[in-house]
Amino acid sequence: MDKFKLPSRHEAGVYSVWIEFSQLAVTTKCLNLGQGFPDYDPPSRFSDYLAQVATEKNSFFNQYTRGFGHARLVKALADLYSKLIDRKIDPMNEIMVTVGAYEALYCAIQGNIEVGDEAIIIEPFYDCYEPMVRTAGGIPRFIPLRNTKPNASTSHSSDWKLDPDELASLFNSKTKLIIINTPHNPLGKIFDYDELTMIANLAKKHNVLVISDEVYEWLVYKPTQHIRIATLPEMWQRTITIGSAGKTFSMTGWKLGWAYGPSYLMKNLCVVHQTAIYTCATTVQEAAARGFEHEIALLGTPNSYFQTLSDELQPKMNYLFKILQDGGFKPIMPEGGYFMIADWTNFEDQLDLNSETDKYKDFRFVKWLSKNIKLQGIPYSAFYSEGNKRMAENYLRFCFFKVIYKTKILLNPLLESKRN
Amino acid sequence: MDKFKLPSRHEAGVYSVWIEFSQLAVTTKCLNLGQGFPDYDPPSRFSDYLAQVATEKNSFFNQYTRGFGHARLVKALADLYSKLIDRKIDPMNEIMVTVGAYEALYCAIQGNIEVGDEAIIIEPFYDCYEPMVRTAGGIPRFIPLRNTKPNASTSHSSDWKLDPDELASLFNSKTKLIIINTPHNPLGKIFDYDELTMIANLAKKHNVLVISDEVYEWLVYKPTQHIRIATLPEMWQRTITIGSAGKTFSMTGWKLGWAYGPSYLMKNLCVVHQTAIYTCATTVQEAAARGFEHEIALLGTPNSYFQTLSDELQPKMNYLFKILQDGGFKPIMPEGGYFMIADWTNFEDQLDLNSETDKYKDFRFVKWLSKNIKLQGIPYSAFYSEGNKRMAENYLRFCFFKVIYKTKILLNPLLESKRN
Repeated sequence: MDKFKLPSRHEAGVYSVWIEFSQLAVTTKCLNLGQGFPDYDPPSRFSDYLAQVATEKNSFFNQYTRGFGHARLVKALADLYSKLIDRKIDPMNEIMVTVGAYEALYCAIQGNIEVGDEAIIIEPFYDCYEPMVRTAGGIPRFIPLRNTKPNASTSHSSDWKLDPDELASLFNSKTKLIIINTPHNPLGKIFDYDELTMIANLAKKHNVLVISDEVYEWLVYKPTQHIRIATLPEMWQRTITIGSAGKTFSMTGWKLGWAYGPSYLMKNLCVVHQTAIYTCATTVQEAAARGFEHEIALLGTPNSYFQTLSDELQPKMNYLFKILQDGGFKPIMPEGGYFMIADWTNFEDQLDLNSETDKYKDFRFVKWLSKNIKLQGIPYSAFYSEGNKRMAENYLRFCFFKVIYKTKILLNPLLESKRN
Repeated sequence: MDKFKLPSRHEAGVYSVWIEFSQLAVTTKCLNLGQGFPDYDPPSRFSDYLAQVATEKNSFFNQYTRGFGHARLVKALADLYSKLIDRKIDPMNEIMVTVGAYEALYCAIQGNIEVGDEAIIIEPFYDCYEPMVRTAGGIPRFIPLRNTKPNASTSHSSDWKLDPDELASLFNSKTKLIIINTPHNPLGKIFDYDELTMIANLAKKHNVLVISDEVYEWLVYKPTQHIRIATLPEMWQRTITIGSAGKTFSMTGWKLGWAYGPSYLMKNLCVVHQTAIYTCATTVQEAAARGFEHEIALLGTPNSYFQTLSDELQPKMNYLFKILQDGGFKPIMPEGGYFMIADWTNFEDQLDLNSETDKYKDFRFVKWLSKNIKLQGIPYSAFYSEGNKRMAENYLRFCFFKVIYKTKILLNPLLESKRN
């Protein structure tokens, strides 16, 4: 049946680190700090909305709704983002609702990349960016964030920066788009005004589209502030910004996201969405709309979930940082998101990882950790292109939106073996 | 910003009849018999499951689940279809859950069509098949169902047949797949054993994949029976069958579907799903799983929803047929699904459709009907390729999963004008 082999353009999408490590988490019964979702119940406010929506009589929330986004949801999103970017957003033409931010990324890339176009991707990167570009016939051009303070006693995500000359060298007449991700997964970096301005100036100079993946926009730790690149001068007209109800409401299982931008850019996304999906689940859209309406009224107050969630996660972040540091890891302090990167190579000499056969040593270490310490992270090299994975082998990623005290207990044997 | 025009492969997906006519239904405030979903509440059993699932503590149904399908749902689907096709289905490798049957179709087509491959599409066809094939770089080859009894006093969907020689002539070395749809939307035809065998034999002879869109598998009217082409001799190994929770549970707003078939064919679909979507909403998957478990226990009994739904719709179908026939339309009696095609050209002489400017007269009539009679159908030519739309201009499609008595009241002025 060789006739039915995978079309070549899809080959880049075959391997998924998430499938491999989710499966490993199940078989090893470990504490899964790999995937980015909470392992305890978030506040019931938003799931209660979903339950209400499901059973309202004569509401038709269990039937099809508008393809590009349920009217009440796009209106709520327009209200919210109009405030946040200080620009009136048209809910019917400048916003599209998607099956998670993931589908929004897919539509933004598929809807813009012609065969042979180049797309600039900053390393580390959320791993789907690369297969999405390649499946569309595009050519990814990678540029790593570089540690500007390699000798600092404590590493901080803001130390990791783009080299402006290196970035400028990647732009050419074939460059269709650049993907930025702020707050950044996996590094936790939040791009500051100067960094965004540098990227924006290159995008404007070379007439390049910016896809800004801002799914962690509310997971921002004091004193850092999140800046939306669409608000920079003359950037609205070349930016598609992507958000996520899963991250915003801690309801990753709703698989609801959106993209917003000028209508002439959104049109391309709409065509791809219309061909691939047509419309998203009405129930979760109506529930998310009610969630946003509730939160818009609380915006800027201490009761806003967009504030309380960060307030809840910042101590977890600090706690994880401390126990990792105390235990011999070298963690990198994030500014946003709910992930932390840590250098694990202090343990390299004492461990025999030969039971694992993976090409990259971070994969071997993470598998060893899952099986022997019952703790799972994600190997950092999964977020790098093949050519640059060696840069990343010393690290792994942990998620701290978890019942985090268990981590210390699990790590004890590893730490003790280090002390011995 | 010409640089950001739609990539050429997506051009076939720009127009959507659904968007145009949904919008028209809203602006004209008409009775919408256009789109295929109920305009009254289905039984609350399934929506109650969704409400339960949304609020169960420590259940994590609001968080990510397995990418290719929530474990409880794929197990329920495997249980059900193993019975129905009399073959043990592996839930983890032979089923994938999707964002509606729509995404299953997209993955099946994207995951198999190499640029230049041909795909055979039977006319009329659910309109997304064509842009899905073209977006993947494929070439659709169309073949219409032909009315074998043009002089019958009453038309029946079973009169519309493929010409076996005409079909055979479309197969060649570039033919990658054929899409069949049974029960058929929009015609309501159910392909019988001989017709399926004829198609199967050609597929086997030319080593061609069959995508069988069976979303209306439970909407089957006595005495016709639905036959799954995957159950024909040596057809399992070349068939991907597609189903829908929206159609099965009358919950179109859940946007949940699936595909099943042999693992070596499913793998291609999984890669596309993994790149475009990654995973479906957990909440609706768990609710659908509970729905199936409930229904599997009732299978073959009079209380099975799969039976009661058809029992509920068959009288509606008969009623719509009668009022259309009494009023001067020439409807085609369906065997399955919840749509009915009707010839409207008896009214052609008495109406001035020049207020509408559409190329095809069924579009002009349907718009006139929405605006003047406050009743909406879908023009039949929307389900034909550009080259064959003239074949379809005499018809329009109505959905009868509606509070159907209203239709008669609305049609009265049209019928009276005919009598005058």
